[in-house]
Amino acid sequence: MKNVCIIGTGLIGGSFALGIKKLYPNCKIIGIDSNPDHAQMAVEINLVDEAGSYEAIKDADLVVVAIPVDATVNELPKVLDAVSDDGLVIDVGSTKYDICKIVEDHPKRRNFLAAHPIAGTEFSGPRAAIPTLFEGKTNIICEVEKTAFKLQERALKLFNEMGMRIRYMHPAPHDKHIAFVSHLSHISSFMLGKTVIDEEKNEKDIFDMAGSGFASTVRLAKSSPEMWTPIFKQNRENIIGTLDAYIKNLQHFMDLMESDKYEDVYLEMKNTNRIKDILNGIT
Amino acid sequence: MKNVCIIGTGLIGGSFALGIKKLYPNCKIIGIDSNPDHAQMAVEINLVDEAGSYEAIKDADLVVVAIPVDATVNELPKVLDAVSDDGLVIDVGSTKYDICKIVEDHPKRRNFLAAHPIAGTEFSGPRAAIPTLFEGKTNIICEVEKTAFKLQERALKLFNEMGMRIRYMHPAPHDKHIAFVSHLSHISSFMLGKTVIDEEKNEKDIFDMAGSGFASTVRLAKSSPEMWTPIFKQNRENIIGTLDAYIKNLQHFMDLMESDKYEDVYLEMKNTNRIKDILNGIT
Repeated sequence: MKNVCIIGTGLIGGSFALGIKKLYPNCKIIGIDSNPDHAQMAVEINLVDEAGSYEAIKDADLVVVAIPVDATVNELPKVLDAVSDDGLVIDVGSTKYDICKIVEDHPKRRNFLAAHPIAGTEFSGPRAAIPTLFEGKTNIICEVEKTAFKLQERALKLFNEMGMRIRYMHPAPHDKHIAFVSHLSHISSFMLGKTVIDEEKNEKDIFDMAGSGFASTVRLAKSSPEMWTPIFKQNRENIIGTLDAYIKNLQHFMDLMESDKYEDVYLEMKNTNRIKDILNGIT
Repeated sequence: MKNVCIIGTGLIGGSFALGIKKLYPNCKIIGIDSNPDHAQMAVEINLVDEAGSYEAIKDADLVVVAIPVDATVNELPKVLDAVSDDGLVIDVGSTKYDICKIVEDHPKRRNFLAAHPIAGTEFSGPRAAIPTLFEGKTNIICEVEKTAFKLQERALKLFNEMGMRIRYMHPAPHDKHIAFVSHLSHISSFMLGKTVIDEEKNEKDIFDMAGSGFASTVRLAKSSPEMWTPIFKQNRENIIGTLDAYIKNLQHFMDLMESDKYEDVYLEMKNTNRIKDILNGIT
């Protein structure tokens, strides 16, 4: 790995840059960002060696596309146009169907690997990058058979060196399942934050009463709307399905309370307690 | 502080016991628990010096009542019957209205202080106790004027020594606000867990895709149904109000998505991002 381009020098792209630099100190990493302030900052805080443009892509062994998923759909074909025959392009978006679809007939489809590392924090921008963000995390790879074998090998070697666990999945089921275990969590958290903020308008001191439980449950409401709006748009159908199921469950819980069925309220919680076992191992 | 009774040797009662023992190593702490296994375990792991019964209350300088809130309503009058004229009884329940109401005319009302330390974890039982659980946490005291002055002083000295910040509030607004910043979080988390578990029935591998965001958002779904069902029952009206507001916000978010109003989806999140500033200082 000699030349790497990171398109999008935020939390995920920046963490890739730091992780790669740790493994390959002599590798030259070029940061490409539509926001010149971010590109500049990424250089200043040593996320990347220099800021660049798509001109640099032709010399890259690896291009990591880490921008909002609507921008990925727009930019990925151009990135593939620019990459050399031996260059590998990886995207890391939280949706996979539209992204895989847009390049399915691209002449350089075999230079592309669709990935989704399940890693992140509620922070964003270059300063949010962490060199060990991907250690022990799951990385979901879609349509691996459509990527040239030697480029698959290059990608898997890097993912392994970064400490990721690999899972393979088709784009459609990826988008369906990730709506439940990631996208819905964000909406539940944002709307919880909204509900409490609305109440707080009239009650200035309410947040003095908030503890670690509230903080944990609304943590994701700090997330970037710039990143999440395109994800919700691309995964619209699946997310509406999960939201509908979630609202029905909440409504049912409220109905049980309104009809004073507290044994059923108890069972709703007891039956969900097995989330303990399920969460074992997720940090 | 020479003699302390802890009624309920779980997470909160046990953490009080450990905190008091750290401050007053010579203090004798007696654990009283309706579950003999918990009382026995509390002795074995040195949460308390010995297991006892209500017989011990008459010699106590301090009695901490840390049992489910329905049990508190049943037991608190008996505990006050048993306490000496100089004994202080504190409850630590997550609801305050019914608890204050049940003892309002008790002849020993002045021996009682109603408190709600905003501290806890998703774990329960004696082994969940932590000596520093209350450090830096808010403790809400209700109807302080109804407690004898020298017993107020005894309580506040202990709370200060344990590192708590004190806030005063009336029971009714306490129960209303805590529904928003604590009780609702638990329901949103339980129902999120339920929604995802229901989906997972047919999809065994879905949880391989779950990351730290999901874990954070459903953490409270590990909480004890034995403790939370009585809280929901006692705070029924307020909780139904918060749930109604939360469901309406989720429904509105879904409506925006269904009508493809993504600028509004963006604004819903952007406007909620100020939870960042609000959460500063809550850990």
